[in-house]
Amino acid sequence: MMTPTTTVPATVTAFDLVSGLSAQRPTLRRRLSAMAAMYADVEAARAQVERDDVLVYEFYDMGVPETSGDVAYGTSITYPGKVGDEYHMTKGHFHSVLDTGEIYFCLRGTGYMLMENPEGDWQAAEFGPGQAVYVPRRYAHRSINTSATEPLVTFFAFPGHAGHDYGTIETRGFRKLCVERDGEPVFVDNPKWAG
Amino acid sequence: MMTPTTTVPATVTAFDLVSGLSAQRPTLRRRLSAMAAMYADVEAARAQVERDDVLVYEFYDMGVPETSGDVAYGTSITYPGKVGDEYHMTKGHFHSVLDTGEIYFCLRGTGYMLMENPEGDWQAAEFGPGQAVYVPRRYAHRSINTSATEPLVTFFAFPGHAGHDYGTIETRGFRKLCVERDGEPVFVDNPKWAG
Ligand SMILES: [Mn+2]
Ligand SMILES: [Mn+2]
Repeated sequence: MMTPTTTVPATVTAFDLVSGLSAQRPTLRRRLSAMAAMYADVEAARAQVERDDVLVYEFYDMGVPETSGDVAYGTSITYPGKVGDEYHMTKGHFHSVLDTGEIYFCLRGTGYMLMENPEGDWQAAEFGPGQAVYVPRRYAHRSINTSATEPLVTFFAFPGHAGHDYGTIETRGFRKLCVERDGEPVFVDNPKWAG
Repeated sequence: MMTPTTTVPATVTAFDLVSGLSAQRPTLRRRLSAMAAMYADVEAARAQVERDDVLVYEFYDMGVPETSGDVAYGTSITYPGKVGDEYHMTKGHFHSVLDTGEIYFCLRGTGYMLMENPEGDWQAAEFGPGQAVYVPRRYAHRSINTSATEPLVTFFAFPGHAGHDYGTIETRGFRKLCVERDGEPVFVDNPKWAG
């Protein structure tokens, strides 16, 4: 094997295709206590935190330069569970640069990508193994795991300069919730939505 | 289920995680006849085309808008095989906007991402299931399948405005080739390289 000559080595990271995790890097971890107020049934959330402050999701920030020529990427793992009748979900966010999209490629599990834009449109796309969901520009996005047993594992990629606006969703919420009714996931109005 | 209200529906595409293919869209297909001149042993290539013009690789163009706010994505499948002792590979390309990177996430198979920049640096990164290779800005890139039996399946994502420059590689070639020596892949100088 010849010795490569390079000034800018490619970043190579080994992810486990089943767990979604890499032993090479730490994840950013979001336990229920960090997002209890986001669930409709805040009392159920607080009670669950008292019993066990469960890990709701974790994901990678690979430290890609924040330029429009770069692509930020990583995996995101949302663990199964419910808070009251509401399925485990990520915090969700807009991009600071609203006119940026994002691709999510599902490696494992079942659930939805919930999306809404500032104009009031909303939509949800189903996740299943091999399903690619392209979130259009201007849409806030949140992953939701509707499986009772399996992690929802996705590989994501977005423009390096997109940035994150978590604050808008934190203060206002999403317009819709994903809850279990008769054993099935359905989307309902968010009673706490503060538009 | 409530009815979503949206003016810009998310694009949802089901890919098979084993084959890398989607029944929803056609691929762009590259048979050996379309790239015979790229292999070091052009006579072996021409003889193979006579016997059977094999499919070397195929990939998706999902038609994402070509803006810096969008992320172009899809899967790429390079089939196992050799031309002489040179492994099956993609044509490879620079991006028209040189200062753009690309992420390749390997879903299946074994091989390399071969990279070189206009300044003469080169490098190769190994592909295996779950391996993510971030191609730095300014690096031409080519996927190489070194397995005797398995397709090399990757999921890729790059900035929407990157564009493709296939011509530079088509006329000049890559500095290095990946060939089999004693049953193992090695990188050697490309005797036809026209720098
Ligand atoms: Mn995002
Ligand atoms: Mn490319």
